Amino acid sequence: MADALKIGIAGLGTVGAALARIIQQRGDELAATCGRPIRIVAVSARDRTKDRGVDLSGVEWFDGPVDLAHKADIDVFVELIGGSEGAANASVRAALARGLHVVTANKALLAYHGVEFAEIAEEKGTLLNFEAAVAGGIPVIKALRESLTGNTISRVYGIMNGTCNYILTRMEKEGLSFADCLKEAQRLGYAEADPAFDIEGNDTAHKLAILTTLAFGHRIAADDIHLEGITNISIEDIRAASELGYRIKLLGVAQRTDTGIEQRVHPTMVPLDSVIAQVDGVTNAVAIESDILGELLMVGPGAGGNATASSVLGDIADIAKSQPGAQRVPVLGHPAKQLKPYQKAQMRLHSGGYFIRLTVQDRTGVFASVAGRMAENNISLESIVQRSKQHLSPSDHQTIILVTHATKEDSVRKAVAAIQTEGYLVGEPQVIRIERPKED
Amino acid sequence: MADALKIGIAGLGTVGAALARIIQQRGDELAATCGRPIRIVAVSARDRTKDRGVDLSGVEWFDGPVDLAHKADIDVFVELIGGSEGAANASVRAALARGLHVVTANKALLAYHGVEFAEIAEEKGTLLNFEAAVAGGIPVIKALRESLTGNTISRVYGIMNGTCNYILTRMEKEGLSFADCLKEAQRLGYAEADPAFDIEGNDTAHKLAILTTLAFGHRIAADDIHLEGITNISIEDIRAASELGYRIKLLGVAQRTDTGIEQRVHPTMVPLDSVIAQVDGVTNAVAIESDILGELLMVGPGAGGNATASSVLGDIADIAKSQPGAQRVPVLGHPAKQLKPYQKAQMRLHSGGYFIRLTVQDRTGVFASVAGRMAENNISLESIVQRSKQHLSPSDHQTIILVTHATKEDSVRKAVAAIQTEGYLVGEPQVIRIERPKED
Repeated sequence: MADALKIGIAGLGTVGAALARIIQQRGDELAATCGRPIRIVAVSARDRTKDRGVDLSGVEWFDGPVDLAHKADIDVFVELIGGSEGAANASVRAALARGLHVVTANKALLAYHGVEFAEIAEEKGTLLNFEAAVAGGIPVIKALRESLTGNTISRVYGIMNGTCNYILTRMEKEGLSFADCLKEAQRLGYAEADPAFDIEGNDTAHKLAILTTLAFGHRIAADDIHLEGITNISIEDIRAASELGYRIKLLGVAQRTDTGIEQRVHPTMVPLDSVIAQVDGVTNAVAIESDILGELLMVGPGAGGNATASSVLGDIADIAKSQPGAQRVPVLGHPAKQLKPYQKAQMRLHSGGYFIRLTVQDRTGVFASVAGRMAENNISLESIVQRSKQHLSPSDHQTIILVTHATKEDSVRKAVAAIQTEGYLVGEPQVIRIERPKED
Repeated sequence: MADALKIGIAGLGTVGAALARIIQQRGDELAATCGRPIRIVAVSARDRTKDRGVDLSGVEWFDGPVDLAHKADIDVFVELIGGSEGAANASVRAALARGLHVVTANKALLAYHGVEFAEIAEEKGTLLNFEAAVAGGIPVIKALRESLTGNTISRVYGIMNGTCNYILTRMEKEGLSFADCLKEAQRLGYAEADPAFDIEGNDTAHKLAILTTLAFGHRIAADDIHLEGITNISIEDIRAASELGYRIKLLGVAQRTDTGIEQRVHPTMVPLDSVIAQVDGVTNAVAIESDILGELLMVGPGAGGNATASSVLGDIADIAKSQPGAQRVPVLGHPAKQLKPYQKAQMRLHSGGYFIRLTVQDRTGVFASVAGRMAENNISLESIVQRSKQHLSPSDHQTIILVTHATKEDSVRKAVAAIQTEGYLVGEPQVIRIERPKED
């Protein structure tokens, strides 16, 4: 059997500790499958005394990740710290510069420095693997980097934030408000004390930015993403969606258009009978549409120590199975130096269906006015629902819900702006984009 | 750039022709991604003159696959002929013996000779890839062989035959009979003129046998599979399933139990709100349950020239990206010589829920008798529906539908056998197993 693959783990939190336990418990099995043993020889973590359920007595401890990356006698540097800058950045940079293979679960790091790091890895002929950085346990990076070779991809989209999906699922199933579900998610550990990063869509955006590059071969553009969170989704939207045959999910969507690449994260109506609509709770799902394969959808756990560790271990095993020094696959699916400049498509040119919910004063002519503004902007309507909402608000208010056929975002914005000047609108209009699977 | 990877394609049917077109059209892109060009240098097919939409003028033609495997100057032999014996078998055997890499889409060949071929490939240090052999475009082989390294798998199940899923979907959506849907499937080219291989479950069984070995590390046992097709599924079963919150799918299921591995292919009730229940038409889906990752579900096209060619191309690209001579991964997930003997679990020990539909004579005491037979066999019931079926049969017949909680198959068989001796049963009893996703 070949020499052991020596790995160093920077960060022994939930994922790092799970990874160390699995490698220790399943050593023989891993060695048989990989053709060589995988051995943890170095670690770094703040607390050396904490019980992590794993025996690290024979392992060399380093004071910090950068120290570990510089000095440890290892083949693979595993970064499980997090954050796009600081120690994670410095240690990965040091490890790559030394010619080590790197495995990371760090989406922010890749979203902001992925291209630069890919260039270094490709120059050095080492591997930079990051399956766990997007959608946790779902092997979407491998599917895009390897299985779909030769395919031209038209759209990648998915549920990539478990916190948001948990909240939306609870809201629908139990009729609870956003605020109540958020509290419950925090209590169960599905949401952070400061939940902004999740519920405002930033977490999804980081993951989407990585997928976009793998799918379309453009440089990563994590700051060029249209971003809307789920904080203003009400139980009324969810109910109306359901009545019209839709369910609301926070999707990240990257799509090839005539004018460039659309990258957007926003609450989205998906058809109730679509497979992705059934993805509940903290589960994630990613769909890839391509010209040869067709549509591939993968559903699985998006977070959690074990699921994430499983992806990290898969990445390490890929390195173990490779011939030493073999550059198997371009880090970002396409050679980093050949990535095209990112060409952003304008959101106002987005084409699709829209759900529009308006609360209006109950007076004659309002409905005709709304319909008129739609017609003026050439928006054709799939369905219109008008009803009084006495149970929710003063009885002189009504709700009008419109679902449009495919139209331009620009037209919808103009129509809604025109309606806003009419004086009969109560509160803010709600506009939610509709996304359909390819076959529809 | 490294030397071109030279491939020979045996069989230029739908898949082979699609593969040749894609490689020709996307040569530059493939070369950039794989780090070397992929070049078709040899082919074999019956008809040399047929227009396949691809220019094969510079390619060497061979009289047959065996000749191609023996003589062509190639690195990779691509077998797209089909069948477990004959030319497919002989040519793959010859190619492996010569030390060529082999890519095949042939499920029957692997189901019956996979272990032997894996041993040869591992001895020679060459790759034997077969992503397209199971579930067409879905990268389930890669997920099991690579992504899930280190996981202990408890169950693999899925919809792996598009013909059956198309028929069951049409029956439910349009209230058509099995026979009518089969005719429609034949007209659309989704079913063969002789449909037995699909509708009786053999096709699913071949695919399942391969997945079982990848999942559990046992030798392939394609003939040790409990097999029931969909030919006796009636529209009445489908309606009753729907009313009780289930949908009927033909599943292949491989499951680890205390007494061995269960391999079974049969019509199955899945919960209506499960993700797999939404997989309609010719689409396939495979779920993998493992202890570290959790549940992973992949949904995609199970057949078709392009989808299959996409998987074949992914396999070729994996070889192109590997260092020459690198043995990256054991062919069947575990080194072939270390595969355990297959240990079959008896179906009568299967534990799960059951749907039982009985047509009975409408006389006093029948319902009590049925309930009594269930109780005698310690079968606890989740729901019981009794109703007259005047619209379907003489008015003195009634239907009794039982759904059991988890119970042993043996108990169900005994209870049903006891009921059959009572004399009030009309026709055959219908028994359909229920399968639930892990989280239920």
